[in-house]
Amino acid sequence: MSEGTNYIGLDLGEMSIRSALTDRAGEILEIGQQTIERKDPAVLSEQVIDIIRRLREKGRARGYDVRAIGVGVPGLVNPASRRVVASPNLPPLEHADLHEEIRRSSGLDIVFDNDANMAAYGELTCGSAVGMKNVIYVTIGTGIGAGLILDGKIYRGSLGYAGEFGHMTLDPDGLECACGNQGCLETIASGPNIVRRTRERLFRDRSSSLSALALPEKGEMTPEKIAMEALNGDDFSLMIIEQTGKWIGTAVANVINLLNLDMVVLGGGVMMAGDLLLHPIIQEAERRSFASPFNHCKIVAATLGGQAGVIGAAMLARDAT
Amino acid sequence: MSEGTNYIGLDLGEMSIRSALTDRAGEILEIGQQTIERKDPAVLSEQVIDIIRRLREKGRARGYDVRAIGVGVPGLVNPASRRVVASPNLPPLEHADLHEEIRRSSGLDIVFDNDANMAAYGELTCGSAVGMKNVIYVTIGTGIGAGLILDGKIYRGSLGYAGEFGHMTLDPDGLECACGNQGCLETIASGPNIVRRTRERLFRDRSSSLSALALPEKGEMTPEKIAMEALNGDDFSLMIIEQTGKWIGTAVANVINLLNLDMVVLGGGVMMAGDLLLHPIIQEAERRSFASPFNHCKIVAATLGGQAGVIGAAMLARDAT
Repeated sequence: MSEGTNYIGLDLGEMSIRSALTDRAGEILEIGQQTIERKDPAVLSEQVIDIIRRLREKGRARGYDVRAIGVGVPGLVNPASRRVVASPNLPPLEHADLHEEIRRSSGLDIVFDNDANMAAYGELTCGSAVGMKNVIYVTIGTGIGAGLILDGKIYRGSLGYAGEFGHMTLDPDGLECACGNQGCLETIASGPNIVRRTRERLFRDRSSSLSALALPEKGEMTPEKIAMEALNGDDFSLMIIEQTGKWIGTAVANVINLLNLDMVVLGGGVMMAGDLLLHPIIQEAERRSFASPFNHCKIVAATLGGQAGVIGAAMLARDAT
Repeated sequence: MSEGTNYIGLDLGEMSIRSALTDRAGEILEIGQQTIERKDPAVLSEQVIDIIRRLREKGRARGYDVRAIGVGVPGLVNPASRRVVASPNLPPLEHADLHEEIRRSSGLDIVFDNDANMAAYGELTCGSAVGMKNVIYVTIGTGIGAGLILDGKIYRGSLGYAGEFGHMTLDPDGLECACGNQGCLETIASGPNIVRRTRERLFRDRSSSLSALALPEKGEMTPEKIAMEALNGDDFSLMIIEQTGKWIGTAVANVINLLNLDMVVLGGGVMMAGDLLLHPIIQEAERRSFASPFNHCKIVAATLGGQAGVIGAAMLARDAT
């Protein structure tokens, strides 16, 4: 059943490379993850080529071969050439001609795309957004990124930069953002900013079970720990999560009003707070968007988790090569 | 040269119907405007059919006939059927089956679309956005509406509601909006809200040459009068215009970051302030968006003025029937 038409998906992150061999339907046959070689472009290329070689070997041992390869990268891919043109968080990618090296070593067709686009495509083809036409996939972690699907296709914009959902200004006089703007959603709702807001608030209110975590000697505070405390019933942590949801919901409302989507898919580490975060997002989006487009638009948690990127990369390799 | 393939474009507004007969290139051959019959659906239908009949007669007298008709409406058009499904500002449209009545009386193909989409299409085919692929056309008047062109086509969203640029939340704790939300761009930058902000500010500062206009007996204050005062060098009026530009520029930055557009086209009555408004919009958009997509995106004033709607309607009739 899996013979002849299988695909490899890679997801190059700042810290690790995820990889998968999938069948034509996006079902995972082999999966892997390893620390990324970030220093030397040549070593990174070797690493990627080696991962591909091993996945193909494993596949061959089970009687099938690979037809095309998709690679998600944390950076900008030229929409025409499908090559990496900027990758501030993984600079070696800008210097390695990974596209050409993979093509030469594998003899296969390759498609590169931004990692958020790949994850969006994964959710579209195999996850929560199957059958949808107009979707935004938002990933909320260290940063807030997004991939857009419009009229059933990845929408990249004129130069490939589309999807900067995290840099929507929501608080015009707010904090400075790394992007140079101030008051971006990311300055409020990204993982590190949830921690910052929690710490700042705890200096004013030490009633929470989290307050111990505000002290450096008690270990690092993380959005995951805050979410865990909220899930365990800590009302202070819950308040932080709910306030976070309100801001994300405001941004979601803006996108629903602008694009009249079928679905908003929310993923990334911060979404481990689950319904505690999802419900205030939905509530605020409802309050701030028009009734008809809101009622039409499902707002859901991503279902593929960390595998959205590799599955999307494999499926884009299937559909776009 | 104009024989055989000519088009009629109508633009149904709250107050008037604009109409045009154009050639294949969108060049206007005949143009008209009359007060709209808003009370009775049957009378409105008769009026529209009569306008079409007269335009065709005028055309025939000059030796050519009409091939298709486009109609822009202030409301929602079902993207599949191209029929009006909701028109809160022109209710008779929901009760008249104008599509069928025009088709029956004229024997021609008809295309209906939202008026902002039609104006966007006019600017795309014959105005400031010729040759562009990804464009937002924003009209700033009594309300703030928009039409989106993505990948060279009108983007309507899943149900036809896309383009609610004016209801982007920019001031989460701001004023209540007619839409039910609070802090929408429209609550700050629409014509009536420019007047409101001016009045409120004048109660605190009576140094401006406009302050006389804050008094009811001196005639109605309008955004046009404020713009005229600013153009005449009144620094208070200029401040109001510049603050307005900053808010619009913030919304423009959000759309540039999200959609990576080729162009933002700004039209509507409020844009009569010209560069006094356009410059702060551009400046604020630059400050708040990523450099590469900002540098790529032209931010310009619309060139077709009040004729964008009828020209766009005629051109959509040319391309979509």
